[in-house]
Amino acid sequence: GGFQVFKAESPGPVPDKIAPRIRDTAKILYKIYIVITIVEIVLLMLGGMPLFDAAVHALGTVGTGGFSVKNASIGAYDSVYIDMIISIFMTLSGVNFSLYYILLKGRWREVFRDQELRFYLGVIVVSFLLITADLSLNYYHNILKSARYSIFQVSSIITTTGYATADFDLWPTFSKCILFMLMFVGGCAGSTGGSIKIIRILVLFKMVKREILKIFHPRAVIPIKIGDKPLSQEVLSGISSFFFIYIVIFIVGTLLVSLEKVSLVTASSAVAATLGNIGPGFEAIGPVHTFSSFSPLTKLLFSGLMLMGRLELFTFLALFTRNFWKSEI
Amino acid sequence: GGFQVFKAESPGPVPDKIAPRIRDTAKILYKIYIVITIVEIVLLMLGGMPLFDAAVHALGTVGTGGFSVKNASIGAYDSVYIDMIISIFMTLSGVNFSLYYILLKGRWREVFRDQELRFYLGVIVVSFLLITADLSLNYYHNILKSARYSIFQVSSIITTTGYATADFDLWPTFSKCILFMLMFVGGCAGSTGGSIKIIRILVLFKMVKREILKIFHPRAVIPIKIGDKPLSQEVLSGISSFFFIYIVIFIVGTLLVSLEKVSLVTASSAVAATLGNIGPGFEAIGPVHTFSSFSPLTKLLFSGLMLMGRLELFTFLALFTRNFWKSEI
Repeated sequence: GGFQVFKAESPGPVPDKIAPRIRDTAKILYKIYIVITIVEIVLLMLGGMPLFDAAVHALGTVGTGGFSVKNASIGAYDSVYIDMIISIFMTLSGVNFSLYYILLKGRWREVFRDQELRFYLGVIVVSFLLITADLSLNYYHNILKSARYSIFQVSSIITTTGYATADFDLWPTFSKCILFMLMFVGGCAGSTGGSIKIIRILVLFKMVKREILKIFHPRAVIPIKIGDKPLSQEVLSGISSFFFIYIVIFIVGTLLVSLEKVSLVTASSAVAATLGNIGPGFEAIGPVHTFSSFSPLTKLLFSGLMLMGRLELFTFLALFTRNFWKSEI
Repeated sequence: GGFQVFKAESPGPVPDKIAPRIRDTAKILYKIYIVITIVEIVLLMLGGMPLFDAAVHALGTVGTGGFSVKNASIGAYDSVYIDMIISIFMTLSGVNFSLYYILLKGRWREVFRDQELRFYLGVIVVSFLLITADLSLNYYHNILKSARYSIFQVSSIITTTGYATADFDLWPTFSKCILFMLMFVGGCAGSTGGSIKIIRILVLFKMVKREILKIFHPRAVIPIKIGDKPLSQEVLSGISSFFFIYIVIFIVGTLLVSLEKVSLVTASSAVAATLGNIGPGFEAIGPVHTFSSFSPLTKLLFSGLMLMGRLELFTFLALFTRNFWKSEI
């Protein structure tokens, strides 16, 4: 039972049991979680943030929740130091927490070789560079300012935190496009981030690579591995189905929200932002707006999407099957 | 070799060889194709269309190409009869052509039971009803007019033909949303339509259903069947990877097009419309506009996307691998 909960809370195909007993694993992870939170509170206070604000924002960062005591989110402090601290901690919170344990054990080589971590950091760096280039050429016309807002928003969206330091809805389409894409990426398995999660995307790319290799070697049996572990057909099938149903829920959700007569971008980004547990989206629900203008029915839909994105998707969908309601099971 | 070409021209997981020899299959299919085209030409001429126009539009319908001799596409004739004929023939052209052969053989029960056909017609009927309701409530305020434009546009987009009788870019967001979704559906396997194709979507839904069933029966081995044929793990893996890479190409394409400083909807619908071989999209490339305003580089990208959507995706991607360019292979 305990392991089921652990699996649900740390989704992804290979939840590492880092200690032999699930209770010990949970204890270790909670300790790491608490230490990171405390370090961030202290660092934010050093930047001049009051204790209460620092505590709220640290909890909002490490839990990738994105709650703030200010309407303008982190932008209200307008401090490069605070922006950087929160950017770093958001990025750290999107990492598989097991890796910190492995790091503490001194097995840094293992951490460095972790494919999911490398892919996660790769996506962040590429997105950061592209958005910085776009912003400094077409929006802020200042490379440092662009870099500052770019790294913050990239780490905020990919980890599904949702803090904002700029009204990124005003950014050029190219930058907005990257942020929209990141809404579907999410953090690593075993992090607190939502959305599809890096590990699934990595596995899907490996599956594509295998299809291409099969053109050259039609009879080859090519296993798909994460690290040294080959993934079972069951896991691959689960990941593919997850990706498909995530996109289907996104489309059906967008359709339902579009009944509100909002724009296509508002409707679709609202669904991506709620299903992925991010927070802000684009246009009518951009970072300087809220979801308050929607009808109660649509708000219920958003609540459902947020729950769906947070719980195990298939388990949630199982609620809508006949099997679930039949008394004999 | 011949069967490879046949497979490429009639994509989908189970290309039925309806005759024992590939040459005979091709002959039968071409005959059906020609007969359908001639019947449509005659019917269009009965509606008052000149021979040349009728021939162009029949070829554009049965080949799901969507070319017209008029700038306003089929809308230029403003004839309910012509709209209906072309709607019907577009829908017929999105069907697996093998089914017509089976029908000719008198095995209509088999046709009726075909899961892909039923799913295809189901998607058309539901989309038609939803758009008709939306248009009659919020746009044309006339149910017959709404039904006329709705059925035409639904069959035009789902079959990736791309003809238009109305500026659907002005329709309410809900209707536009459904059309946008249909851009990713496409016709049946063994039809001339592009995009993802109904059969793949059907299989992906079956995979999701299996994941949900596995929650109730964790140890069950549940095969995925189309008709009575269980699909191999290889085919399922190919379909999942196809869906994922289709979405990835859509996202990367949208990113590249957004460098043109067009809106998110223009960029994304332009990529969906070229990759799916549809034609018109929304906003700056809506049905009353063309792709002429884009830069030559972006036009090259669109050409690439159109080719990619038309050829076997994985074979196309193989061009970009080292394996392909190594001389020893």
